[in-house]
Amino acid sequence: MARWEPDAQGRMIRAALELFDERGFDQTTAGDIAEKAGVTERTFFRHFADKREVLFDGAHTMEHTVHDVTVAAPAELSPLDAALAGITAAGELLADRHEFSMRRSRIVAANPSLQERELLKLAAMTESTTKALHERGVTEPVASLAAHSAVTVFHVAFARWVAEEEPPAFADCVAEAAAALRALQ
Amino acid sequence: MARWEPDAQGRMIRAALELFDERGFDQTTAGDIAEKAGVTERTFFRHFADKREVLFDGAHTMEHTVHDVTVAAPAELSPLDAALAGITAAGELLADRHEFSMRRSRIVAANPSLQERELLKLAAMTESTTKALHERGVTEPVASLAAHSAVTVFHVAFARWVAEEEPPAFADCVAEAAAALRALQ
Repeated sequence: MARWEPDAQGRMIRAALELFDERGFDQTTAGDIAEKAGVTERTFFRHFADKREVLFDGAHTMEHTVHDVTVAAPAELSPLDAALAGITAAGELLADRHEFSMRRSRIVAANPSLQERELLKLAAMTESTTKALHERGVTEPVASLAAHSAVTVFHVAFARWVAEEEPPAFADCVAEAAAALRALQ
Repeated sequence: MARWEPDAQGRMIRAALELFDERGFDQTTAGDIAEKAGVTERTFFRHFADKREVLFDGAHTMEHTVHDVTVAAPAELSPLDAALAGITAAGELLADRHEFSMRRSRIVAANPSLQERELLKLAAMTESTTKALHERGVTEPVASLAAHSAVTVFHVAFARWVAEEEPPAFADCVAEAAAALRALQ
């Protein structure tokens, strides 16, 4: 028996993931998601611009977090360490969404248009990080290089984190990827 | 007096750049480009899928070059150095297209949809480089980290190269950006 859930947005996200998994992203409509979540299509479109947005719901929050945490990192941190603090904080937003993140990654990997959207999201995160480093007084090309490097670390750490059912903490995945980056000769 | 040019493709590229610069990308049609280049619209579409493709003409050649040169780099090179050899060779394809590259960058920077396409092209270059490193026997996460780092260096070196009328050689821009990357703490 389904228990009553006031969280319509969460219900729509869960319904969408199930449908994308079962039928495929292309074969699922916004109407299907609304129906499965027990809401009207109108409610769906009050929350999301389209079905794709269900998967990119947290992107803006992550961008803002990366920016704000990078700007506020201790002054003595190097540009790369400040940016890594930012991306670690963004990753921590996902801490209690591991199962969601695993399923979402699988769905994105199966759809070229979602992969493109994911790349653009990472590019936006790089831009936020570069901007934050500029606000810390870091000049070019160091700001861009450190921001790209930190987002690359995020990308690699995230891939590791969603590859296992019981992964290390996200911050540990970041530390591991950052160490490998620093070891490049 | 215009001299006779057998190179229809080159004429279309030059005509497109002039029109994109003068009128803006959105205000230029494939028909305008064909007319200015003295070819039929049909000829235009035999060479390019759409007007956007005029600006991304060399992308596949660059991806293949990065891949092949990275694979063939001396065995003793580190993964990062092998990838840097690949992106340097890709950059050298642009050596005699500096003025074109400057104008093209300005046009891309003014158009969000072209910027997205450019990001996807860089992502494809990262993918080619990662694949080439795998073929050299480099494992994850080092292959991804080295490939992303090399493409970041390409991106930063390219930005520097197109920022000046008389820039250093592309390979020197790469060396400079790679040194700054290695100096990140």
